[in-house]
Amino acid sequence: MSEPTPSRGLVAYQGERGAFSEEAALRLLPGLDAATLRPQPSFEALFAQVSEGHVDFGVVPIENSLAGSIHRNYDLLVESRLKIIGETALRIVHCLAGPPGARLESIKRVLSHPVALAQCRRFFAAHPELAAEAAHDTAGALRRVIEEKLPQAAAIGPRRAVEVYSAELLAEGIEDDPENYTRFLLVARQPRPAEEGPHKTSVVFSMPNKPGILFRALAVFALRDLDLSKIESRPIQGRPWEYLFYVDFVSDAVAEHDNRARRALAHLGEMTDYLEVLGSYPRQV
Amino acid sequence: MSEPTPSRGLVAYQGERGAFSEEAALRLLPGLDAATLRPQPSFEALFAQVSEGHVDFGVVPIENSLAGSIHRNYDLLVESRLKIIGETALRIVHCLAGPPGARLESIKRVLSHPVALAQCRRFFAAHPELAAEAAHDTAGALRRVIEEKLPQAAAIGPRRAVEVYSAELLAEGIEDDPENYTRFLLVARQPRPAEEGPHKTSVVFSMPNKPGILFRALAVFALRDLDLSKIESRPIQGRPWEYLFYVDFVSDAVAEHDNRARRALAHLGEMTDYLEVLGSYPRQV
Repeated sequence: MSEPTPSRGLVAYQGERGAFSEEAALRLLPGLDAATLRPQPSFEALFAQVSEGHVDFGVVPIENSLAGSIHRNYDLLVESRLKIIGETALRIVHCLAGPPGARLESIKRVLSHPVALAQCRRFFAAHPELAAEAAHDTAGALRRVIEEKLPQAAAIGPRRAVEVYSAELLAEGIEDDPENYTRFLLVARQPRPAEEGPHKTSVVFSMPNKPGILFRALAVFALRDLDLSKIESRPIQGRPWEYLFYVDFVSDAVAEHDNRARRALAHLGEMTDYLEVLGSYPRQV
Repeated sequence: MSEPTPSRGLVAYQGERGAFSEEAALRLLPGLDAATLRPQPSFEALFAQVSEGHVDFGVVPIENSLAGSIHRNYDLLVESRLKIIGETALRIVHCLAGPPGARLESIKRVLSHPVALAQCRRFFAAHPELAAEAAHDTAGALRRVIEEKLPQAAAIGPRRAVEVYSAELLAEGIEDDPENYTRFLLVARQPRPAEEGPHKTSVVFSMPNKPGILFRALAVFALRDLDLSKIESRPIQGRPWEYLFYVDFVSDAVAEHDNRARRALAHLGEMTDYLEVLGSYPRQV
């Protein structure tokens, strides 16, 4: 399995320097030079940067083990026609950190994204002296605490942000639920080259509204012994009983060069109204 | 179809007074008296209130058309053994509102949950004079603006919050994407009584890890012409290739009193490691 050469490319992700997406980028492109990281204010901007060729790679969260699939990013994958070329799963570990030299005893305010704050409920219950304060994002909250020298303040954010902002680590792993994982995708303008080894292929499709039609679509995979690693229906708003389906299936090589995968996709195409292959990439998760 | 009698019961939901969940509660229990509403600080607290009999009903968001299924609330449904007795889908409409008498021209700060702020990007682009400020939740942001008389401040929140806090509506429908819906469930300690009419039944199950096993599970429904309105796989962390499956299927009456549904569930039980019926309720979505 050949990794894309990170030294030649720039990488866009959503969030501030030190965000969980940046951790995922380092995982997806090992040896990545921090100088090639290009933080973006929104997912729309991220996809535009890759589509327009300003950067070579994009790193996109697609599902979380507590919060589910991020449909909006599926939409952007489809609209942009970018290809998935890699995947990774990152455990979401929350760190409490403050300015250099800070001590937990002197902290009164804790800034972070409301979702991160809510995931550390037990930590706050054990420290009633700490007031939780909402911020736009986790890494950005830590940046603010450090740059603006907020008195008696700390932030909850990723380990990566603690390093990027040279913050003082006060506590690590303060999340209530350790089973909090986000799956990230690596996207690019071109699909991966021919490769052997277990690959996942991600497809989106819709079908005419007939009883049992999903069952028949899945026969395409089951009758060829192709395992599914994901299936999900998503209602199409305003069209009751019509759905988009997300399916990830596993084959022995990149789909284009795997007979079973190629035939299954052709067969699926016979019964779908709409079918898009989002990419075929080495299975990591 | 007989609705549960709201006048006799108290209703718990997560969030502050005026939250989107409160709008959903009014939709699920028409004629609800505001005095019976019991806002809760967390989903855990909401489920505990219903389980322990302090309230009769709970209103729980379970999936959003942009953000996906809320796995955490599926977990709480399973753990609490509460039953789903109703559903509704609410369009997420964002309102900008300020203190009574406020005018848009005099507003400088706009408070809301970061997710709501990010969903109104175009509105902020058209009003560069407005600074977005993170808050713990949408309805709570509006409450703060009104109660603390924050100067030159407004908040983005639900229409219901504008009414609850007697705020001045400055703009309505400022979200970028009108296709933003959240599906809410009504939960209670007891299942619904026998009823005719189209019902949805929600089940969670896991199966031994064998090729094609999901296909066989779906045969249980397809061979009985029972339509699926939802299917979703969710990886079980730390157990590669093992999944929980969420399936909603539709029958002609509440599942217990519908022959096809009863037989399909018995058949499904033959091949699953684990099977939980979360509830059977009139189909609304």
